[in-house]
Amino acid sequence: MKVGIIGASGYTGLELVRILAGHPKVEISSLTSERFAGLAIDEVFPSLKGFIDLRFSELSVQKIAREADFIFTALPHGTSMGVVEEFIKRGKRVVDLSADFRLKDLGLYERWYGKHSCPYLLQEAVYGLPEIYRDEIKEGKLVANPGCYPTGTILALTPLLEEKAISTSGIVVDAKSGASGAGRNPSLTNLFCEVEEGLKAYNVAGHRHAPEMEQELSFRVGDPVTILFVPHLIPINRGILSTIYARVKGELSTEKVCDLYRRRYQNEPFIRLCPPTTFPSTVEVRGSNYCDLGVMVDEASGQLIVISAIDNLVKGGSGQAVQNMNIMCGFPETMGLEQIPIFP
Amino acid sequence: MKVGIIGASGYTGLELVRILAGHPKVEISSLTSERFAGLAIDEVFPSLKGFIDLRFSELSVQKIAREADFIFTALPHGTSMGVVEEFIKRGKRVVDLSADFRLKDLGLYERWYGKHSCPYLLQEAVYGLPEIYRDEIKEGKLVANPGCYPTGTILALTPLLEEKAISTSGIVVDAKSGASGAGRNPSLTNLFCEVEEGLKAYNVAGHRHAPEMEQELSFRVGDPVTILFVPHLIPINRGILSTIYARVKGELSTEKVCDLYRRRYQNEPFIRLCPPTTFPSTVEVRGSNYCDLGVMVDEASGQLIVISAIDNLVKGGSGQAVQNMNIMCGFPETMGLEQIPIFP
Amino acid sequence: MKVGIIGASGYTGLELVRILAGHPKVEISSLTSERFAGLAIDEVFPSLKGFIDLRFSELSVQKIAREADFIFTALPHGTSMGVVEEFIKRGKRVVDLSADFRLKDLGLYERWYGKHSCPYLLQEAVYGLPEIYRDEIKEGKLVANPGCYPTGTILALTPLLEEKAISTSGIVVDAKSGASGAGRNPSLTNLFCEVEEGLKAYNVAGHRHAPEMEQELSFRVGDPVTILFVPHLIPINRGILSTIYARVKGELSTEKVCDLYRRRYQNEPFIRLCPPTTFPSTVEVRGSNYCDLGVMVDEASGQLIVISAIDNLVKGGSGQAVQNMNIMCGFPETMGLEQIPIFP
Amino acid sequence: MKVGIIGASGYTGLELVRILAGHPKVEISSLTSERFAGLAIDEVFPSLKGFIDLRFSELSVQKIAREADFIFTALPHGTSMGVVEEFIKRGKRVVDLSADFRLKDLGLYERWYGKHSCPYLLQEAVYGLPEIYRDEIKEGKLVANPGCYPTGTILALTPLLEEKAISTSGIVVDAKSGASGAGRNPSLTNLFCEVEEGLKAYNVAGHRHAPEMEQELSFRVGDPVTILFVPHLIPINRGILSTIYARVKGELSTEKVCDLYRRRYQNEPFIRLCPPTTFPSTVEVRGSNYCDLGVMVDEASGQLIVISAIDNLVKGGSGQAVQNMNIMCGFPETMGLEQIPIFP
Repeated sequence: MKVGIIGASGYTGLELVRILAGHPKVEISSLTSERFAGLAIDEVFPSLKGFIDLRFSELSVQKIAREADFIFTALPHGTSMGVVEEFIKRGKRVVDLSADFRLKDLGLYERWYGKHSCPYLLQEAVYGLPEIYRDEIKEGKLVANPGCYPTGTILALTPLLEEKAISTSGIVVDAKSGASGAGRNPSLTNLFCEVEEGLKAYNVAGHRHAPEMEQELSFRVGDPVTILFVPHLIPINRGILSTIYARVKGELSTEKVCDLYRRRYQNEPFIRLCPPTTFPSTVEVRGSNYCDLGVMVDEASGQLIVISAIDNLVKGGSGQAVQNMNIMCGFPETMGLEQIPIFP
Repeated sequence: MKVGIIGASGYTGLELVRILAGHPKVEISSLTSERFAGLAIDEVFPSLKGFIDLRFSELSVQKIAREADFIFTALPHGTSMGVVEEFIKRGKRVVDLSADFRLKDLGLYERWYGKHSCPYLLQEAVYGLPEIYRDEIKEGKLVANPGCYPTGTILALTPLLEEKAISTSGIVVDAKSGASGAGRNPSLTNLFCEVEEGLKAYNVAGHRHAPEMEQELSFRVGDPVTILFVPHLIPINRGILSTIYARVKGELSTEKVCDLYRRRYQNEPFIRLCPPTTFPSTVEVRGSNYCDLGVMVDEASGQLIVISAIDNLVKGGSGQAVQNMNIMCGFPETMGLEQIPIFP
Repeated sequence: MKVGIIGASGYTGLELVRILAGHPKVEISSLTSERFAGLAIDEVFPSLKGFIDLRFSELSVQKIAREADFIFTALPHGTSMGVVEEFIKRGKRVVDLSADFRLKDLGLYERWYGKHSCPYLLQEAVYGLPEIYRDEIKEGKLVANPGCYPTGTILALTPLLEEKAISTSGIVVDAKSGASGAGRNPSLTNLFCEVEEGLKAYNVAGHRHAPEMEQELSFRVGDPVTILFVPHLIPINRGILSTIYARVKGELSTEKVCDLYRRRYQNEPFIRLCPPTTFPSTVEVRGSNYCDLGVMVDEASGQLIVISAIDNLVKGGSGQAVQNMNIMCGFPETMGLEQIPIFP
Repeated sequence: MKVGIIGASGYTGLELVRILAGHPKVEISSLTSERFAGLAIDEVFPSLKGFIDLRFSELSVQKIAREADFIFTALPHGTSMGVVEEFIKRGKRVVDLSADFRLKDLGLYERWYGKHSCPYLLQEAVYGLPEIYRDEIKEGKLVANPGCYPTGTILALTPLLEEKAISTSGIVVDAKSGASGAGRNPSLTNLFCEVEEGLKAYNVAGHRHAPEMEQELSFRVGDPVTILFVPHLIPINRGILSTIYARVKGELSTEKVCDLYRRRYQNEPFIRLCPPTTFPSTVEVRGSNYCDLGVMVDEASGQLIVISAIDNLVKGGSGQAVQNMNIMCGFPETMGLEQIPIFP
C-alpha cells in the first residue's frame, strides 16, 4: 500500500517515517514539507540515511492523491482540516494527527481552536483510540488520532469509569511530558537552556487537551466528567507520565481495581499492567507503542491513584496512527509496531 | 563563630560548606566524614578549591565540641540522634538535618523510622521552619531542620489552612524532585542511566515525609489534616516542584487567594509570590534560598492549585539550616543566603 | 537456535536480550545473573514485559551447555575467561563481550588487566570486527567482541591506515562517551548528580582500550601505530563520538579521502558515510548498529579530522555481538539488527 | 557607579545582571532589549524577582549616556560596533562582549565577520584577558571581552608558549561546550530535543574563534601559531571543556610543566591548577569565574595534554567582563565575583 505523509518534517512526521519504513505492507510514496521542500529526507534527518530515498515536496493534493492510497496528515490544527477534506473528497482514507477532528461538538472546537471549515466531517470522523473504538476505526474513512495527553489519561481512566468505580467529579490529572510534545518549531520555550534542569507547570487548568479528555470520558460513563488537568514540562525528549487522582466510590481494594483493569485490557496488545502497587516509568515504554498502567487505592484518603506511561511520539502520536491504519486496512494490528522499548 | 559540620561529605554537607564558606560571621572549624576521613575537602570536592583548607576527620564528639561553638549534623536518621544528644549534653546548639527530631509523636516516629534513643528531646526540638516558628527557633537549643518535600508543601498550604480557606481532607500533593534529594550514596536507583530521560513516581502514598507534612499542617489548622503524597523522580540535579490540589471552602477567587498569601508572607525574605495565575519553575530558585509560590482557583472544579518551587539543597536543606542558625545566633536572617538564583 | 546469555543483568546483557528477542532465528534459553538470580527478567527490566518469559538463574555451565547452542558472555574481564573456556571445551561457540580475548599479546594483556588463566585461547580467538575479520569470524569458535571505544576508532582509521594516507605517529583520539559505557554497577562516579551537567576527561592517556586500538591499527598497516587516547564522560545515556586527528601524508584533498572511505566501505551494511565536510552525531545512530563517519582535510594545518559516531551499546557492544553471531551461524548479517535509529 | 547594559535579555546579559546585582560598588541604571522593551526584567527573568526593579528600555544612546557612567554592550557582532563607538565618543568606558573589537587585523575581521564601521577603534581596544593584559585594561577606554572558547584555550596555552615549551604548529583544540554558548535566540539547532542526548562537532576547522585564538597565541610567542580548532555541542547548560594537544619541545616532564603553570599563574585569583595528572571538570567551576587547568605529558607520544574548564557565561563571558570593569575602575579585581562554584 502506498502511503503519503503530509507535514513530515516535524517530530511526529519523522516518527511516522521511522515506523512505516519498517512496515512490511507499506511503501511511503510522498512526503511533504513546506520548510524543507526539495531536500532529501535524510539531509534533514540523517538518522534515516539508508532507509528511505525520497525528497520532501510541497503539498499538492492532486499529485499526492495520485501517488498514495492512504494519507497521514501531521499538520498544525487549523491548517489540517482543509487538506483532510480534500483527500476525503478524493476517496482517500486518512488518519489525521492534528486536533481538527477530535472534538464532536463544533462549539467546543471553536472555543478552543477557532473557526472550523468543514464541521460536517466532525461527526463522520472516528476518534482513533483502538482500545475503545476498534470497530468504528475498522470502517472509518477519517480517523482523528487522539492527543498525546488524552491517550494516556483516557486509557488510565476508562476501566474505572466504565465500571463506575470512581466519582465523576474531582478527578485530577497531573501530567508530565517531555519536550518533543512541543514540536520542532523553534520558540523561546523549547530551547535547550530553557528546558534543561527545569521543572514547571504550564497552561494550568487551561490546556486544549482537557475538553478532549472530558468528551471521551463522559462518553465512557454516559454522564459529564470534569477533569482538572495540569500539564508539566520535563527535561526529557520522549514520554508522558500521567498521575491521576480520583475518589473511590464504595469499598474498593487495590486488588479489585487491578482485576478490573485486567479484565478490561486482557486482549489489548499495547496495554501492559504493572504488578499491584507498582507503577510504570516512561523509560520502560520509550520508542514503543505501549501504554503501561499502575494503580493503587489509598484507603486512608479514599482516593485512587492511577499512573500511565506512554511514549508521546509513539502511542501518543505516530505509533497509534499506524495502529489505526493497520485496523483500517485489515493488517495485523501490531504490524510495524513490535519494537521493544529501548532502555537506557 | 566556629562551626562544626558532622557528615559533611554528602550533597547536603557540601552545600552547607558552600554557603558557610561565604558567611561573614562564621568559620568552619571541623568537618567529619567516615568515608573520606583524612582527605582534604577539596580533594573530594574540587569545586571548593581555594575556599577552604580543611581535612575531613572522623567523628569525635569530644574533640569537635572543643573546636566548635555551633553544630550542624547531616547524618542519616537513626545515626544522627545519638550524636545530637552528645552535643546537646555538652551545651552546644545544634541544627540537625536528619529526620530524627522532626516528629513530635514518638509512636509516629518509630512507625516510620524505627527505635528512638532519646525521645525526651523530641518535645524540646523546634521544627525549623522560620516562616512559622521564628520565635521558637530564636530560643531553641536543638532545631530539627525540615525535610525537603515538607518545606515546599507546608509553605504552600499554610496560608490556606490558617485561614481555613480549603478543606482539610482530600488534599493531594504531587511532588517532583531532582536526584540530589536521594543523596550521594551509590545505589542502582540513582545511577545516571537509571534516572536520565526517565519519569516515575516512587513511594506512592508511602513516603516518610507525609507524616511530617500532616503533623505541621494539622498544627496550623488545629485539626487533623490528611495528605495524599506522591513524589516523583525527575532527571535534574536540584529542585522540587510541588503541585498541590485542594478543595476550596466557600467562594474564593484567585485574586482573594493571592491576597491571602501576600498578607501572610509580606515580610518574609525568602518567599516570593508569582503574579496571579502564573506559576514558578525550579530554575528560577536554583542555588538560592527562595520558595516561589503560584496559586490559582479553578472555578469549574471548585479546586485550588498551588505550586511551590524550591531548591531542595538550599531552602529544602542546607540554606534553611543556615537561616535557622542565623536566627538562633542573632545574625541577620539572610546573611550568607543572598545568592541570586542561577539560570540557565 | 538456542542461545544463552551469561551475565545478562547489565546494560550490555539487557541490550542483547532486546535485540535477540526480536531475532527470527534465535530463542533465548538461559539468562544468568548473580545479583538477580530467581527473579523474572521483566521484574528487573520492566521494559521487557510481554517479550520474554524467563528468570535469571545462577551460572551453571553444565546446565546452560545443555540448554543452549550458542553462548554470549557479558561478564567482567577476569571473570569471563574461565567461563568462556568451559563453554569452548564443551564445544559451544561463544561471543565474549569482555576484554579477556581481545589482545593477542599475553604480556600486554597481563600488564593492563592482570593474570590470564587460559592464554592458549588468545591466539584462537578472533577479534570480532566484521568489517575487518569477516572471514575469520565465519570460522571462529570464540569471537572476542571489540571494546566500544576501539570499534569507533578502528573503523574510522582503517581506510586511512590501509592506504597509508596518514602518519602512524601523532594520532590523537579524543573520544566522548555516554554513561552507559560505565555499566550498571553503582559507584560514585556514575551517579546521576555526578554526571549530569558535567564534562570531564578520565583515564587520560591511560585507558585500557588504547592498547586494543594500537594492536588492531598496527595490524592494518603492518607497522606499530601509537595512539594518544583521551576519553571523556558526557551526560547522555548512549553514544560515543570519537574525534580523531592525524597528519596527512603527501597531498590529499577532502574529496580524495572521502573516495577512499567509499571504496573501503561500499558493501558494508552498517557503515554510513556523511557527505564531504559534514559530520555525524550520536543521536543519528542511537539504538542502531550503525557506525557513521565524517571526514575532512584541514589544509592549513596538514591534518585530517575523522569523526565516528556509534551507539556504544549496539555497534559498540551487543549489536556487534549479534552481527558476529549472524556471521558465525550463516544467518544474514543484518538479521535482527534492522532497527532504524531513534531520534529524538 | 552607575552601569548600563545594552542588550540585556540574552543569557550573557542576564548573567551580567546576576553578577552586578550583587556587586557592592555598582548600581545598574539602564537595561536595553529590543525584544522585551517595556517589560520589567523580572517578568522576563523571574529568577531576578526581588533583586532588581528595572524595566527594559529601547536603546537610546543619549539617554543611557546620561544615566550611566560605565557601559557593557552585549549585542550581536556587527550591531555592537556602532553602539560602542557612540558611547566611546561620549566619553564612556565600555566593555564590549561582542566579537567586534577582538581582532587587531581589519582584514581578518572582515573575512570572518563582515564590514567594520569603525576600524580605527580596533587598535585602541584592549583585549580583555586580565591574566595577560591587566595593565592595559587598567588604562583602557574600550575593552574587547574575549570569546568563550578563546578564554579557555589561551589561558591553557599561554604558559607553554611563553616558555616555548611546545611546538607552535600541530596544536589541536578539541573543545566541548554547553548550549548556552549559542545564545537565547530560538533556532532549530538549539532546541531541547535537538541537543538533549546528542553529541556532535560543528564548524569543524571553521569556527570564528580560531583566528582570535591564533592572534593572541601568536602574540604570546612572537611567531605565528596555528590552531586546529574543533568545537562540539554537549547537552549541558553551562561549561566549556577544552582538551588541547601539543607537541612537547625537548625533554619535559609532567612535574616540570606543572611548575611552569604554577609560576605563571601563582598570583592569579581566578586560575586554579589541578594536582599533577588530574584534570578539571566543568561542574567544578559552574557559576564561578574560575578557569581550572590540568596538564600532563604523555612521554610515549611526545605530546602534552592540557585541559581547561570554565563556565562559558562567567569566565567565558559576563564574569570576565565584570573582572575587566573592576580593573578599569580600580575596584578589587574579585569584587562581585567571589561566588563559590555550585555543585551538583
